[in-house]
Amino acid sequence: MASGSNGASTSEEPLPVRSRLILQQCLSAKLMVQPRTDTQEEQFVEIGRGLIIYICFFRGATEDMVEKMVKAALTACLSESETGKLVSVLDLPGDVLIIPQATLGGSLKGKRMQYHRNINKEDGYNLYSKFAKLCDIYVTGAPKCREQQKVVRAGTYGNRQVFSTQTNGPYTHYLEF
Amino acid sequence: MASGSNGASTSEEPLPVRSRLILQQCLSAKLMVQPRTDTQEEQFVEIGRGLIIYICFFRGATEDMVEKMVKAALTACLSESETGKLVSVLDLPGDVLIIPQATLGGSLKGKRMQYHRNINKEDGYNLYSKFAKLCDIYVTGAPKCREQQKVVRAGTYGNRQVFSTQTNGPYTHYLEF
Repeated sequence: MASGSNGASTSEEPLPVRSRLILQQCLSAKLMVQPRTDTQEEQFVEIGRGLIIYICFFRGATEDMVEKMVKAALTACLSESETGKLVSVLDLPGDVLIIPQATLGGSLKGKRMQYHRNINKEDGYNLYSKFAKLCDIYVTGAPKCREQQKVVRAGTYGNRQVFSTQTNGPYTHYLEF
Repeated sequence: MASGSNGASTSEEPLPVRSRLILQQCLSAKLMVQPRTDTQEEQFVEIGRGLIIYICFFRGATEDMVEKMVKAALTACLSESETGKLVSVLDLPGDVLIIPQATLGGSLKGKRMQYHRNINKEDGYNLYSKFAKLCDIYVTGAPKCREQQKVVRAGTYGNRQVFSTQTNGPYTHYLEF
């Protein structure tokens, strides 16, 4: 049974996974969205307490799965409230930082990572953009997030994701779709 | 085909995965290994440029798989050298920070994470300790790491993993064993 076994797998069978998310809790995070150019300083986005989402799409990913992913990430009770209760980032309420991370699609062959299963850049960009837009709609639409002016920030697709974060416990979670 | 499909899976079938690793590149990272007590300040470990390894064991994980995991993590060419070439952390050479992360074993059911598949604490501690010890042996034994006095630092099993990191690109990778 090697299906679903990535990384150390030697199976050649195509895997059913179409997207991977890594979720981490943070106190703050800062991500570069525009590298320095000859005429401009580099630009960053920042969030406060909330959720970091690393995201990668595989070949076969489709638009109709994106809302399910957004809902899972934003409504899962993974954030620790002041009273120690686990609540969703929408109920915390917290900020959201989305980091495109094509490397998450890699499979280890010997000492090298292969990314044959990753989606092509154009489709990946479209799905990523939809994911970010839907996150924004969910956060904007959540009463607690709106009251406390929580924000969604998203990295630039295809860029090097220069970033820093601080956390009281990342509580790293992995989701496949 | 839901085997290997975690998170969004509705399958009740047991999955074959016995361990998960998340690998990230960093410029620096700092992790609390001892919380503050009445008589003592909190204690941290720090690394410079190198590799962060988040690790989680599932039920069924065994000692004989640990070296394969260590070898995969430390010899995979995921680190960017000065010349832009991808090399292993042993050849970079770089430091290694190991973060125990039981939450990586979670499966999403509705809005709640379940950790039924996680290994028990005692066995998990033993496997984690072996993993950390073997990483140290590999790093100590790698000529470039030894020459440049690279270090392995490991979080305290069962603790809240208070930490911070800076990166020029995490290049997040996911491995299953």
